Amino acid sequence: MFDYRRSHTCGELRTAHIGQRVTLSGWVHRRRDHGGLIFIDLRDRFGLTQLVFDPQFNSDAHAIANRLRSEWVISVRGEVIPRGSGLENPKLATGTIEVQIDTIEVLSRAKTPPFSICDDQIEVGEEMRLKYRFLDLRRGHIADNLRTRHKAMLAIRRYLDASHFCEVQTPILAKSTPEGARDYLVPSRVHPGTFYALPQSPQIFKQLLMVGGLDRYFQIAACFRDEDLRADRQPEFTQIDIEMSFMTIQDIFPLIEGLMKAIWKACLGKEVHTPFRRMTYADALRDFGTDKPDLRFGMPLVTVSDIAERSDFSVFKEQIAAGGIVKGLCIKGGADLSRKAIDDYTQFVGRFGVKGLAWMKMAQEGLSSNIVKFFSDDLQKELIERTGAEKGDLLFFIADQTDRTNQALDHLRRQIARDRHMINGDHDEFLWVTDFPLFAWNAEEKHLEGAHHPFTAPHPDDFHLLETAPLQARSLAYDLVLNGYELGSGSQRIHDGDLQQKIFELLKLTEEQILRRFGFFVDALKYGTPPHLGMGLGLDRIVMILTGTENIRDVIAFPKTQRASDLMSEAPSEVDPNQLRDLRLLLEEEEARS
Amino acid sequence: MFDYRRSHTCGELRTAHIGQRVTLSGWVHRRRDHGGLIFIDLRDRFGLTQLVFDPQFNSDAHAIANRLRSEWVISVRGEVIPRGSGLENPKLATGTIEVQIDTIEVLSRAKTPPFSICDDQIEVGEEMRLKYRFLDLRRGHIADNLRTRHKAMLAIRRYLDASHFCEVQTPILAKSTPEGARDYLVPSRVHPGTFYALPQSPQIFKQLLMVGGLDRYFQIAACFRDEDLRADRQPEFTQIDIEMSFMTIQDIFPLIEGLMKAIWKACLGKEVHTPFRRMTYADALRDFGTDKPDLRFGMPLVTVSDIAERSDFSVFKEQIAAGGIVKGLCIKGGADLSRKAIDDYTQFVGRFGVKGLAWMKMAQEGLSSNIVKFFSDDLQKELIERTGAEKGDLLFFIADQTDRTNQALDHLRRQIARDRHMINGDHDEFLWVTDFPLFAWNAEEKHLEGAHHPFTAPHPDDFHLLETAPLQARSLAYDLVLNGYELGSGSQRIHDGDLQQKIFELLKLTEEQILRRFGFFVDALKYGTPPHLGMGLGLDRIVMILTGTENIRDVIAFPKTQRASDLMSEAPSEVDPNQLRDLRLLLEEEEARS
Repeated sequence: MFDYRRSHTCGELRTAHIGQRVTLSGWVHRRRDHGGLIFIDLRDRFGLTQLVFDPQFNSDAHAIANRLRSEWVISVRGEVIPRGSGLENPKLATGTIEVQIDTIEVLSRAKTPPFSICDDQIEVGEEMRLKYRFLDLRRGHIADNLRTRHKAMLAIRRYLDASHFCEVQTPILAKSTPEGARDYLVPSRVHPGTFYALPQSPQIFKQLLMVGGLDRYFQIAACFRDEDLRADRQPEFTQIDIEMSFMTIQDIFPLIEGLMKAIWKACLGKEVHTPFRRMTYADALRDFGTDKPDLRFGMPLVTVSDIAERSDFSVFKEQIAAGGIVKGLCIKGGADLSRKAIDDYTQFVGRFGVKGLAWMKMAQEGLSSNIVKFFSDDLQKELIERTGAEKGDLLFFIADQTDRTNQALDHLRRQIARDRHMINGDHDEFLWVTDFPLFAWNAEEKHLEGAHHPFTAPHPDDFHLLETAPLQARSLAYDLVLNGYELGSGSQRIHDGDLQQKIFELLKLTEEQILRRFGFFVDALKYGTPPHLGMGLGLDRIVMILTGTENIRDVIAFPKTQRASDLMSEAPSEVDPNQLRDLRLLLEEEEARS
Repeated sequence: MFDYRRSHTCGELRTAHIGQRVTLSGWVHRRRDHGGLIFIDLRDRFGLTQLVFDPQFNSDAHAIANRLRSEWVISVRGEVIPRGSGLENPKLATGTIEVQIDTIEVLSRAKTPPFSICDDQIEVGEEMRLKYRFLDLRRGHIADNLRTRHKAMLAIRRYLDASHFCEVQTPILAKSTPEGARDYLVPSRVHPGTFYALPQSPQIFKQLLMVGGLDRYFQIAACFRDEDLRADRQPEFTQIDIEMSFMTIQDIFPLIEGLMKAIWKACLGKEVHTPFRRMTYADALRDFGTDKPDLRFGMPLVTVSDIAERSDFSVFKEQIAAGGIVKGLCIKGGADLSRKAIDDYTQFVGRFGVKGLAWMKMAQEGLSSNIVKFFSDDLQKELIERTGAEKGDLLFFIADQTDRTNQALDHLRRQIARDRHMINGDHDEFLWVTDFPLFAWNAEEKHLEGAHHPFTAPHPDDFHLLETAPLQARSLAYDLVLNGYELGSGSQRIHDGDLQQKIFELLKLTEEQILRRFGFFVDALKYGTPPHLGMGLGLDRIVMILTGTENIRDVIAFPKTQRASDLMSEAPSEVDPNQLRDLRLLLEEEEARS
């Protein structure tokens, strides 16, 4: 058998290797015939090397080379020689040399690929790329992302191990709970009529590990949600899952900051600056209209309800009277925006349900626009002072309900920043958002519900609000935000049984409901629970940011489509009726037919 | 809020800390009252520390300590003091000191545990331990195993990363294939009537990564099999999965040997000696009756059919005439075995379907037993020479069909070794078993089938046998064996399309069957497949050996029972009828009732 083992990879040979005899193996990337000579670019995952087949030098090898087609796998032997003067390829790491081949073996032939591997400039539809993922991988881009993902995972594990955390694998065949998103179910054959559920996160298991005294746990965990998929979701996704005992927020923040530092260093060679900025949920909403502000640029939101209230502009005044808000932002140098551009932004914010976008330009002589006349000189001065408007700036205002105004302004702020190139793409701005509300109001069912899960600890300064003003009570929940994306969230958990009971009472949960929704877990917490806290971070999102892609499928080897299908293997698929019989299951259609 | 953060762990304080003020937090492990003084052993995952509450010194703290019960979680402050002379506990790392407490906070109370945490001498039924796994974890044994598992996983990842392998996560929501064991199915809601399957191994995905040019892949992968469980199986288990391109067995053996070295070093601090022994499948069967021999002791099997054939012992001769075999082993010093012991072994081998166990003792004057008379002096000499019998040894012989004889003698050999303490438990004997048969004969359906999967490469020396004597053809499949356990198996895969086609033809697979059974994968292999090989190693088994347990559930945080149930969360369980309606599924019982 031909010994196809490489002496060097296709990305390795340099001028220093000239004169050496080498064995290379790989794929035929590109073939060019030049007056008798045949040039082959040979490819492996490490790079490309040019092979020369000269009929004068070795006619047998040349004859075989003449039959080669794209993507055939070959193994060759020959001598490293310099490229002719002027024929070097500076774009290629191996561009100063070529290999003169005397021995060639075809290891396997290839059908013509459905799209070009060698020309990655040609746009290929994603559906085609997913169907032939094994060929798409050869084009390099996805493979590079997978290597970054590998580096990130290893950096995470090294770092957490060094911080005395223990990785524990928790079950994938787990228990269905009515909380949260829809579960993927797995029918049990041994216990007909019952089901496992794939875990949406290892939350319960990791808290049980703390109850069990494990002290510091982590896992790079597969999680599953049967949701109607948004563009950036997958039915299976990966979470960096962390939990620790006898510690507080003061301990987990530096831990996670160090983790990000380690990942960025390992994957990008970049220094991340710590500590990260911190901002309360209330401040984030007030200043950016969102709990995940992108801080790579400024342009904060400014509330002007108190000024607008004293104006004669009825549109603003009516909104305020109806309990709404008037809020805006100041675009530095934005006075250059055309009427058309302003109209486009008005249409843009309309998508979020707000009815209009008021504007004022800051000229030499002061504010100008069709609504300035409703504001007295004093009020105009107040507006200028409040917004920090300077000559050449543009102010935008929205008057509507608070939530809707915030949402529209958040989107507007980010859209303007993109349009006006205000974002430094090389720069990363991490941010802790803290003090999330403990409860939310379920308007339909008219009762409190946990803003996170009901095991989230209240903020110790707000214990007195639990009974009197629960919606004002803050929690010890926190999010890590990067460049406007939520990377993960976590919280201090309740460890005290009495406090847990009080929270359940505030949530109006009966004993029976508690048992049905949380089952044995609530009982487990009664056997001596240490103070503990943790967080879950989205690995897919982190790798997307590291690799600069907006497409989650670009960071997963074999992803699913938005319809949760694998186009390559054609999963999900019909199964043998025997398999369903074993599980004592029937399809609804069968039922209907019978 | 009380700051419960520890200045030291419960395993940390020594004589050198005497005089220091410390904060410790943990569980009340044991409480003793001694004439006013209360002693508490405080426990965290790092160890135990003795606390002293003296009513003269601090009556408030003493009063609280008086109310403490087992497994309450507390935080304490006090000064490290020496234990009184003669009161040191040499069994405890912290046994020379104690902490005199002036401040104590109860962090959470605990219900009385259903079994003792502090006395791990008390045997607790496994069912109880699994139901209260979070308490079982506090007893330390399982937690220690999980830490060993963590160390092993990290060592694997570090080592394979250093060897330029890239960890790639492959899908868990995968495609059902009719090959192999029974799949766990996951009904699709988006595509009603279709199912995902949980992967039995990432085999297809990893080969596709090689087709995609990834070059070197690994994964510590979750795998699933819906089998009726044997004692050492779990429905979900973990495989160290490896695949590499442009390499051969000469490359993977040292790679895996280095991997084992790294794991043993990281987990046990032990040096594993490499290279490992190698043995062909044929030799393993001949000399040990099994393809996974335990080489920590000798006592090889000896075939004596040719001698027995010439004897007058009709029992042996009839078996040989019927195509059987006569094979035995020599127990050094075994002549001391009682008649009763020999009867017990006869009964033991009977379990494997063999009808008898012949024996001969080697006395000063030669062989003796009730069957020696059927052997001439010359034949007795031949037997002695063949088996290496010396004075005081015992020979056992079995005459039966080859497979059955091998199975019985393999079990007998290992049972004798255990009974006679021939195994050095501190010693590990790794072994490569190579040259497995390529095909097996399906006696029921009367055709060849792949002994492994049909992508396993034939041994290059046996290409000529493929058509003429396929059952004699060897493959490039190999197993790694340790102390009688199969740790994993792998093979060189077929990369040549023509050879693959020939194998399919020999297996009498039609195009349609090939498509149905292997689907898109066979087509994918036609787009330029590099030579590749790999292996899968059972992580659970490796950790079992590292931790010295025979129970697979002892190396898994939240294991399932042999009936595939989680006794703690009570999974699998019934689900809400809405969940089934979403999936358009009916249970058979419902059908029957309607």
